[in-house]
Amino acid sequence: MTRTKGYAAREAKGQLSPWIFDRREPGPRDVQFDILYCGVCHSDLHQIKNEWGNSSFPMVPGHELVGRVTKTGTEVSKFKPGDLAAVGCLVDSCRHCDNCAEGLEQYCQNGNSQTYNSMEQDKKTPTYGGYSKLMVAHEDFVFHISDKLPLETVAPLLCAGITTYSPLRHWQVGNGHKIGILGLGGLGHMAVKFASAFGAEVTVLSSSPSKEADSSRLGAHKFLLTKDPVQLKSAQGYFNFIIDTVSAPHDHNVFLGLLRTNGVHICLGAPPKPTEIFGFNLIGGRKSIAGSLIGGLPETQEMLDYCAAQSIVPDVEVIDIKYIHTAYDRMLKGDVHYRFVIDMASL
Amino acid sequence: MTRTKGYAAREAKGQLSPWIFDRREPGPRDVQFDILYCGVCHSDLHQIKNEWGNSSFPMVPGHELVGRVTKTGTEVSKFKPGDLAAVGCLVDSCRHCDNCAEGLEQYCQNGNSQTYNSMEQDKKTPTYGGYSKLMVAHEDFVFHISDKLPLETVAPLLCAGITTYSPLRHWQVGNGHKIGILGLGGLGHMAVKFASAFGAEVTVLSSSPSKEADSSRLGAHKFLLTKDPVQLKSAQGYFNFIIDTVSAPHDHNVFLGLLRTNGVHICLGAPPKPTEIFGFNLIGGRKSIAGSLIGGLPETQEMLDYCAAQSIVPDVEVIDIKYIHTAYDRMLKGDVHYRFVIDMASL
Repeated sequence: MTRTKGYAAREAKGQLSPWIFDRREPGPRDVQFDILYCGVCHSDLHQIKNEWGNSSFPMVPGHELVGRVTKTGTEVSKFKPGDLAAVGCLVDSCRHCDNCAEGLEQYCQNGNSQTYNSMEQDKKTPTYGGYSKLMVAHEDFVFHISDKLPLETVAPLLCAGITTYSPLRHWQVGNGHKIGILGLGGLGHMAVKFASAFGAEVTVLSSSPSKEADSSRLGAHKFLLTKDPVQLKSAQGYFNFIIDTVSAPHDHNVFLGLLRTNGVHICLGAPPKPTEIFGFNLIGGRKSIAGSLIGGLPETQEMLDYCAAQSIVPDVEVIDIKYIHTAYDRMLKGDVHYRFVIDMASL
Repeated sequence: MTRTKGYAAREAKGQLSPWIFDRREPGPRDVQFDILYCGVCHSDLHQIKNEWGNSSFPMVPGHELVGRVTKTGTEVSKFKPGDLAAVGCLVDSCRHCDNCAEGLEQYCQNGNSQTYNSMEQDKKTPTYGGYSKLMVAHEDFVFHISDKLPLETVAPLLCAGITTYSPLRHWQVGNGHKIGILGLGGLGHMAVKFASAFGAEVTVLSSSPSKEADSSRLGAHKFLLTKDPVQLKSAQGYFNFIIDTVSAPHDHNVFLGLLRTNGVHICLGAPPKPTEIFGFNLIGGRKSIAGSLIGGLPETQEMLDYCAAQSIVPDVEVIDIKYIHTAYDRMLKGDVHYRFVIDMASL
């Protein structure tokens, strides 16, 4: 075992503090790397507060890890010491169910191993995330990243990036489509960048007038203030797709009205309470509400390569690990532009 | 104007009685026909009771009409006196919006004219349905039907038929798919016939054990009793599609659990109250809930031709118009096998 430092929550109070723990020695196909940056996702905060009811402690959050390889197992072929490397939301899966066979490890039918607050495939060894100095993972779940992009900006691609890239590709969003991006946060701002890169006409749907200026800077073509009934009315039946990044409770029926015939409302955030849907709002236009969860291994690598080729990166604010609680407070107020990334040298 | 007889509701009490009213003289492109049979749809009962809150009276229900042409306008090219003819849920639409241009008149963006409890495109002349002796409609909204099929069995194809045929075609249900049909009534039994004809493996999902025998007779391969937790558990993640024909309130989350990754739950019935959906049930498997409404003109003719070619017809119970209130009572008890059809000679 290798002793490492991290920041952990010990109970569901939303507080992190330094913690010393062990990572396994790299097995034959494991890659060990020094974590240089780790993105801060809203789900980190949900989980250290046990807001989804499935938290176990101590918990080291963080599932947007980038770093440099220090050691590789004897059978590792994809990486060598000195390479850049990244890990996202998953560190393992059953690898043999239909979904894993299709590269949809995020939907592993036997339960995947998430990067933290989860168990390895032995179903008993807890996983610890990226708010730490050192990572060890099976090479299949470690991604190559380009040295052309500023490293601190790559980290959020591992969750915010793939979570928005994957549904846009799955529903083949592109030229000729009008898409609304609901919520302009970590996920929303990546959805804007990807959807406009894919050729769609992009409208940011937000309740904050202050987001309008940034929307166009990020590549959106239009802005719709969702609390303005006049703007809502004028957009009835307008969109082919809405990407919904909001995890706070909201009325989905309002947004179903903005969809045109065959339109799809794609939920990426999961409000803690159920949402009420009127059946007529789906039936009267062959509309759908769908959900999408991160992305599988092949698509995550594809997304990282696409971002390197197209120079698409998130807007980040690099922070010291000691700033994490202030960062969480600002996250709760929506004061993020657009992803906090922890510089692990500060740990 | 041509005086005709019908059965009408005068107020929202669910009671029909004889009523004399006028149909327009056929215009240049109108077809006039004697109604020989009219199917009885659950929505007839919803509307004469004003359960959807949009009823106006007097109301002559009925949107599954078949009969024989008696008169045609001077410019009618599709029909001549003596031809069989049918009208479904629509008698007109704007004809120029994007959806009408695509043959999706059911989603007309300027408001279509439904066969009853609606207005003609002048937005002031009420429409009266098929519980009557005589119909006049624009030839574009009148369908050809085959003389190979028993005429009384053709009527329900105009609503129950197209409402199930259309989503199965839209989502390309066929070989290799496992589909669940929730509810075995007028719509459900047609969904079973179509889905099995299209090559899918069909399971009827029902809360009534008594439906099991009929399910296999109608072409279903399996039966799942939805109130048996053991059967529900064993079908987790099983279906590619569920066609939901139930318009009574029910928990959609139960059925989302039965869908596999990328599965689609397609609602055809609209419960009067909203349904609560947990976001995680969509996100954890890229699942969708969708709706679908009847079908457009080209697809309705396609379905009628397909049924004639494949000898697919609903199971009907032909009734006298005086039996209508008993039929409604039996409908509310689920005692329909599987569509009542009124013999208009009884009027």
